[in-house]
Amino acid sequence: MARPPQVKLVEVGARDGLQNEPEPVATAVKIELIERLAAAGLSAVEAGSFVSPQRVPQMADTPQVLGGLRRRTRTAYPVLVPNLKGLDAALAAGVAEVAVFVSASEGFSSRNIACSRAESLARLAPVAERAVAHGLRLRGYVSCVIGCPYDGPVDPDQPAEMAVRLMEMGCYQVSLGDTIGVGTADAVRHLIDRVALRVSRACIAMHFHDTYGQAVANVLASLEAGIAVFDSSVGGLGGCPFATGATGNVATEDVLYLLQGLGIETGVDLLAVAETGAWISRLLGRPNGSRAGPALLAASGARSTVVR
Amino acid sequence: MARPPQVKLVEVGARDGLQNEPEPVATAVKIELIERLAAAGLSAVEAGSFVSPQRVPQMADTPQVLGGLRRRTRTAYPVLVPNLKGLDAALAAGVAEVAVFVSASEGFSSRNIACSRAESLARLAPVAERAVAHGLRLRGYVSCVIGCPYDGPVDPDQPAEMAVRLMEMGCYQVSLGDTIGVGTADAVRHLIDRVALRVSRACIAMHFHDTYGQAVANVLASLEAGIAVFDSSVGGLGGCPFATGATGNVATEDVLYLLQGLGIETGVDLLAVAETGAWISRLLGRPNGSRAGPALLAASGARSTVVR
Repeated sequence: MARPPQVKLVEVGARDGLQNEPEPVATAVKIELIERLAAAGLSAVEAGSFVSPQRVPQMADTPQVLGGLRRRTRTAYPVLVPNLKGLDAALAAGVAEVAVFVSASEGFSSRNIACSRAESLARLAPVAERAVAHGLRLRGYVSCVIGCPYDGPVDPDQPAEMAVRLMEMGCYQVSLGDTIGVGTADAVRHLIDRVALRVSRACIAMHFHDTYGQAVANVLASLEAGIAVFDSSVGGLGGCPFATGATGNVATEDVLYLLQGLGIETGVDLLAVAETGAWISRLLGRPNGSRAGPALLAASGARSTVVR
Repeated sequence: MARPPQVKLVEVGARDGLQNEPEPVATAVKIELIERLAAAGLSAVEAGSFVSPQRVPQMADTPQVLGGLRRRTRTAYPVLVPNLKGLDAALAAGVAEVAVFVSASEGFSSRNIACSRAESLARLAPVAERAVAHGLRLRGYVSCVIGCPYDGPVDPDQPAEMAVRLMEMGCYQVSLGDTIGVGTADAVRHLIDRVALRVSRACIAMHFHDTYGQAVANVLASLEAGIAVFDSSVGGLGGCPFATGATGNVATEDVLYLLQGLGIETGVDLLAVAETGAWISRLLGRPNGSRAGPALLAASGARSTVVR
């Protein structure tokens, strides 16, 4: 399988990352974060989530974030919506792309979204239908595609089935998430090959967490399985950096460093992302989850020239 | 190139790791660290370094460490020796294996060991000769095999030439070190292929630092280039965890997690290494550089049962 000559990154730091911060982050900071990431060349920057503000207070200001954002015409700002109420709020905010999510495992589905996988698909059907009717682009997330914190190892047929169902609902792409970061290279390749029997590789994105230190290696394995879209998070935002065993998303900087080394084009300015990762980590008072970012800034001396 | 069915890890935490700690570590702690690592199944555990105590005070107690160690018959405890004086001290301490080191780049050679590459080889020739004459096993390190902090990118012919010279001196194996961690997967594979034109792959070990977050991916790339020996460091000991851009060696735990996932045998008890990594990190008051270790302990609840 030939590696893709170009790769697209979907930046999830401002949503998947910040929703896991212990305290909500100021709206102005979110806006600046998203604008900096878009300015660095990231063509898809998740901007928030229309979920219950009681359940996820960190995302309660998503309408204000979207309202305050200077949107670039070539950048997508997808938002997560769990149900029709969320979709209506997203439509009211004038979004052009929404994302929906399901779990590949029953255990995570019942504990994280309080319904079975079948029920979650049934609930999403009218959401997807209305989104598509309004001309929105629709992206699907499947979580726990390799392992589940409750059910253990997950058979690849499970995420494959959920991916097919999401594509049938009108998703242009499904993002397969190793939510607890347990996968290693062969499991990742095996998963992709199994899903690709039913969903085109061109419609598959991979979403890795670095919990066991495998995320960059899993990106490499995925590239070699023909995958050309990856979710990543600036500064590795996400998870709780202070709790062991809860490492966040793979850092955008580390993935970009790999891709740059392999000669794969992304259109993204790695140094600008590294500066943004250093800025947001400092601002949140959290360790920078990227390794390449701080190393690049130290090597280039760029940090001292950053004004912000 | 088929991946090896078995891999050997050379644990360098007690030497390459601890020599970079700001303060020397107590002799008793070093002994316990080495004994725990050997008990976990690691068949090669670097035990110290016979270098100038003025230059590297962290290693000044290597004779006492070796003297206090309960040595296992099936474990190798190599020590680093830079010159004849160091070799004599190692012989006096009754070691069975020594390691010598050179740089693939002129810049690092002149700044790190204050001589040219040619001079360093000339100095090592009598060291190697005497070591071999005394029946010691001799291992060679080549540093800066991909990039040099002073010279920039390093042509693979440079490490290849140094590796050949070390093998000619009697080394049974050369360890190729990406000292500043700048390499990515293709550069690693290219390097190995070029060195392998002149040195058997069976005699090549790889030594990665995780400075740019690439170390585990580079281990994966090396496995696919037929490499079956890797240096690693428990808890990612090495470098300075508090200085940006100076990340340490790849963590033994993270490499073991990868190998376990790929079904490659090591004979090492990953959980025992994870417990040792948590213990030494806590004791040194440094962040644990491994990701898999803390995640495994959190998942297994094993930490709470650790008595030490």
